[in-house]
Amino acid sequence: MARIAVVAGDGIGPEVVAEARKVIDVALPGVEATEYDLGAARYHRTGEVLPDSVLTELAGHDAILLGAVGDPTVPPGVLERGLLLKLRFSFDQYVNLRPSRLWPGVTSPLATVKPGEVDLVVVREGTEGLYAGAGGALHRDTPAEVATEESLNTRHGVERVVRDAFARARRRERRKVTLVHKTNVLTHAGSLWARTFDAVAAEHPDVSTEYQHVDAAAMFLVTQPQRYDVLVTDNLFGDILTDIAAAVTGGIGLAASGSINPDGTYPSMFEPVHGSAPDIAGRGLADPVAAVLSGALLLDQLGHADAAARITAAVGAELASRAPGVAVRTAEVGDRIAAQVSA
Amino acid sequence: MARIAVVAGDGIGPEVVAEARKVIDVALPGVEATEYDLGAARYHRTGEVLPDSVLTELAGHDAILLGAVGDPTVPPGVLERGLLLKLRFSFDQYVNLRPSRLWPGVTSPLATVKPGEVDLVVVREGTEGLYAGAGGALHRDTPAEVATEESLNTRHGVERVVRDAFARARRRERRKVTLVHKTNVLTHAGSLWARTFDAVAAEHPDVSTEYQHVDAAAMFLVTQPQRYDVLVTDNLFGDILTDIAAAVTGGIGLAASGSINPDGTYPSMFEPVHGSAPDIAGRGLADPVAAVLSGALLLDQLGHADAAARITAAVGAELASRAPGVAVRTAEVGDRIAAQVSA
Ligand SMILES: CC(C)[C@H](C(=O)O)[C@@H](O)C(=O)O
Ligand SMILES: CC(C)[C@H](C(=O)O)[C@@H](O)C(=O)O
Repeated sequence: MARIAVVAGDGIGPEVVAEARKVIDVALPGVEATEYDLGAARYHRTGEVLPDSVLTELAGHDAILLGAVGDPTVPPGVLERGLLLKLRFSFDQYVNLRPSRLWPGVTSPLATVKPGEVDLVVVREGTEGLYAGAGGALHRDTPAEVATEESLNTRHGVERVVRDAFARARRRERRKVTLVHKTNVLTHAGSLWARTFDAVAAEHPDVSTEYQHVDAAAMFLVTQPQRYDVLVTDNLFGDILTDIAAAVTGGIGLAASGSINPDGTYPSMFEPVHGSAPDIAGRGLADPVAAVLSGALLLDQLGHADAAARITAAVGAELASRAPGVAVRTAEVGDRIAAQVSA
Repeated sequence: MARIAVVAGDGIGPEVVAEARKVIDVALPGVEATEYDLGAARYHRTGEVLPDSVLTELAGHDAILLGAVGDPTVPPGVLERGLLLKLRFSFDQYVNLRPSRLWPGVTSPLATVKPGEVDLVVVREGTEGLYAGAGGALHRDTPAEVATEESLNTRHGVERVVRDAFARARRRERRKVTLVHKTNVLTHAGSLWARTFDAVAAEHPDVSTEYQHVDAAAMFLVTQPQRYDVLVTDNLFGDILTDIAAAVTGGIGLAASGSINPDGTYPSMFEPVHGSAPDIAGRGLADPVAAVLSGALLLDQLGHADAAARITAAVGAELASRAPGVAVRTAEVGDRIAAQVSA
């Protein structure tokens, strides 16, 4: 039976993860879960972010379920770079998978977009680019200060994620992949992405392709999100585009993600796209749907497509039944979805 | 009298620039305009993108009116880096000013946003960041290829654009500045931006401030664009966010911009946010409003606030009078706005 590690993390993380576990437990009884106490509280208590011993233990699991990481009391970057990105990079989670669909019952902020019309997935590169941590500063706190951030991109890293995007497109109805970059300004990295994309595309004549600059893609996600099937892009562009995609499909309260190591060398990690939302933490107001759907992605990745599909269907029923404008209660949502799964 | 250089450029550039000039001519008779033939056609004819002699001539003008640059027949980056960015950088146009408002008569793709409710301006840094052109590649076209792009940020460059944003906020009703960056990942550049922002904010106790990560800002521009007054951000984030802001306020057909050298050492440059749109070029279908409004920003920058205000009012009348769904004809729009200005 599957052994998963649970990192509930900060803010609303523990609340939404509790509901995801509730639902996983009924969808696939017997999943063994071990909790790891990581995040702001541990950092304040011990100064530790992610001890090597914990990293090693996590590596021994089949998958990781993560809530949220980040707290205003911790300097920016400490938990994000030291915990979240450390896991994505250490476990070579090069496919950051972020599906967005407009569910029946959910109102898009876009006037003309109807449920069922948007069904896209962003395949975001997860282990390179500006997230590599290559940067520095000189003459800090003086008028002469200079700070750099370097985007590192390899053929190895680009090709494997582009291949994953094409493989996913082949399993979808529309079979279309959009490459998003900024080749007209970032000419070196852009050229590497474009050439690699073209080479992989040539091996997939049954998949249609297009290229868009990131600014244009950001715009079209607002004006015509229906046009997209699979998007593939770099780490930072993917970060931004997936929040737009989430916004037009009902908000990050519904957006799930997987940081996937497709080779299976290391565990993959599943987490809602939303952050720790300290302003509403501990009040039972967070929508656990994103965490629950991340749990479904997790089960799917572990080969339990059936259990995953039952969770997804139950989420669909939950969303379709919501009265507009009524605030959600975290635990009640989890209860309803769990009941629906076992029905 | 003002002497301006006109770079009509590629695609729809010449068409929309012709209308902008028509309107400028009636708003402020006597502006002397010199045309410079730069862009894809010249590149194909002569191999030249921006000869030094032309750069020197351009420097002698009071301002530059630019249409659009870019053509599918030219490798990505050649015209963008060699012409557009070369001008922005050579002329130290460090404030890339991009106002977005939802005009009466214009329908936002957002269901709940009403005309008059969105009125924001993005102050995008124009001379640093990932646009610096610092990057390279090794082992090109081999499996070992690596490509880098470096974001360069200086206290000098950040402080001057942040100061400009606060100065603009002081002249606006809401007096609010939002800093957008990604401090939790780009820790070096993010820290420089955040510390500089805080220092300048301390000198402006009458201006309220907030910070948002770029992914959150991209989302809020879709869900709550009303919340923003002035946004200040780096070159690449500004590129993406201004296309979203344009999308939610009726599209890039209406979005004007100025690449401004506030010190007056070099000419500032004014251009629509849209690109060359080769698919509709030469057919009289492009909306010239963005170019016309860029002309208004140009006149304002040169001290002709009155003429600028009359153009802006005439654009307002044009937009308010448009029947929904009717395609625009480039020259007719220019004629109507010009007639309104002289009325
Ligand atoms: C918290 C942050 C480091 C993270 C990212 O930028 O990847 C988040 O925004 C996300 O999208 O998962
Ligand atoms: C054409 C391109 C180089 C340019 C940019 O990225 O700045 C454009 O997108 C813009 O926003 O003016």
